[in-house]
Amino acid sequence: MRIDIVTIFPEMFEGVINNSILGRARREGLVEINLIDFRAYSNNKHNTVDDTPYGGGGGMVLKPEPIFSAVEELTGSVRAGTVEVEGGEAPATARPRVILTCPQGEVFSQAKALDFASEEHLVIIAGHYEGYDERIRQYLVTDEISIGDYVLTGGEIPAMVIVDSVTRLLPGVLGNDTSAVLDSFREGLLEYPHYTRPAEFRGWKVPDVLLSGHHGNVERWRRKESFRRTLVRRPDLLQGRELSKEDRKLLDEVMREENQTN
Amino acid sequence: MRIDIVTIFPEMFEGVINNSILGRARREGLVEINLIDFRAYSNNKHNTVDDTPYGGGGGMVLKPEPIFSAVEELTGSVRAGTVEVEGGEAPATARPRVILTCPQGEVFSQAKALDFASEEHLVIIAGHYEGYDERIRQYLVTDEISIGDYVLTGGEIPAMVIVDSVTRLLPGVLGNDTSAVLDSFREGLLEYPHYTRPAEFRGWKVPDVLLSGHHGNVERWRRKESFRRTLVRRPDLLQGRELSKEDRKLLDEVMREENQTN
Repeated sequence: MRIDIVTIFPEMFEGVINNSILGRARREGLVEINLIDFRAYSNNKHNTVDDTPYGGGGGMVLKPEPIFSAVEELTGSVRAGTVEVEGGEAPATARPRVILTCPQGEVFSQAKALDFASEEHLVIIAGHYEGYDERIRQYLVTDEISIGDYVLTGGEIPAMVIVDSVTRLLPGVLGNDTSAVLDSFREGLLEYPHYTRPAEFRGWKVPDVLLSGHHGNVERWRRKESFRRTLVRRPDLLQGRELSKEDRKLLDEVMREENQTN
Repeated sequence: MRIDIVTIFPEMFEGVINNSILGRARREGLVEINLIDFRAYSNNKHNTVDDTPYGGGGGMVLKPEPIFSAVEELTGSVRAGTVEVEGGEAPATARPRVILTCPQGEVFSQAKALDFASEEHLVIIAGHYEGYDERIRQYLVTDEISIGDYVLTGGEIPAMVIVDSVTRLLPGVLGNDTSAVLDSFREGLLEYPHYTRPAEFRGWKVPDVLLSGHHGNVERWRRKESFRRTLVRRPDLLQGRELSKEDRKLLDEVMREENQTN
């Protein structure tokens, strides 16, 4: 997979894409990540890529020309919007996904990460502006993505979120050990509590069942605590969920116990 | 405000905290951001900070000792859990917030960013593990935060999200220009479309009203389009919302228009 990140702050990304799992995936050729400074596509001598908004008001708005030029060079073709003007849309398969990170976008999810991970080429526009000229959204971008309901200084960190979540899903990036964690999340439950040595720390002990060596009991405890944590913290994840008979029983137990506690 | 980031990958953060708005805020002394490599607090010669899980299974679990040592040194005191053992909890005000980024946490929001921004000292633990020993959650951490329902390779990027969203709320970090954007978001509506020069780009024109110079009409159009975008993309944000008579009228107009379109 190839991911092109279009940004005016390429240096913000270096630490994230060169270290840890992303860094290793790049070195092993499992993913190609390119940083493109779109200020280079400015059409004026001051290298500006933004301008004041029509209709007045504060803040600056990202101009259409530099970003269209940068993205079209990356995708190797004039894209959807322009093709439309010439009398018809390009087939959807011929268009790389062009993702804009912005607060108005669809809220990012694991399903969206899986969707993006099935592509061969992603272009991510990481804006750092009050706003984007609307024509960028309408005619250049295929996906507008928000990573959550909070305000950030720019789209760079959201772009990192997308790159990281997508890259870890690519074949070979994670070892077998860690794919289990993925499966657990895919299933829509929160993780059960983990414990490691020492068995007692400052008087706080590890639950006996985890030291028992009884595999069946350990599995049952973990699944039950997974239900408990999900019930207490994120009951929304349990809504509309179909449960096996065994899971139903575990969840009922947890609900009884939690009712007694409260 | 002082923010301490406890991590085993401090180099991942350099680009984000040294550039753009965060970089400027640091240089101007509006925020102090420290990176602490907690591998230095390992209690063994191999500098390991994780271990296999009790009860078996794949993956590694972050051990309690190094992280307790690192955080307690940063907060200048032995914290909640330990004080409890000695016969009583420390008063809440005396405890710095200790934030753990993890998928099981409370989903981050602008309200949470505002809450954190009112503190004088935050400690953020950015884990990079399959799991944290449960005693870290129970006795050291005050807030568990998830930035959204997607899986990342570690807690570093979520820590950047928190640092960025909190820092931009601190006095003096944003100019007056940009605080308007904040107000718009606080209000719970998505932003209206923005346009800048050229008035026509590849045949796509800026809406006439924005070129009209009629301030009242521009404001009305923007508010209406803000309602439209929110209605189409995030109707959840409109639920249970109390509207002024004027806003009710705008929203009704939008709903009629959208019904005709569909």
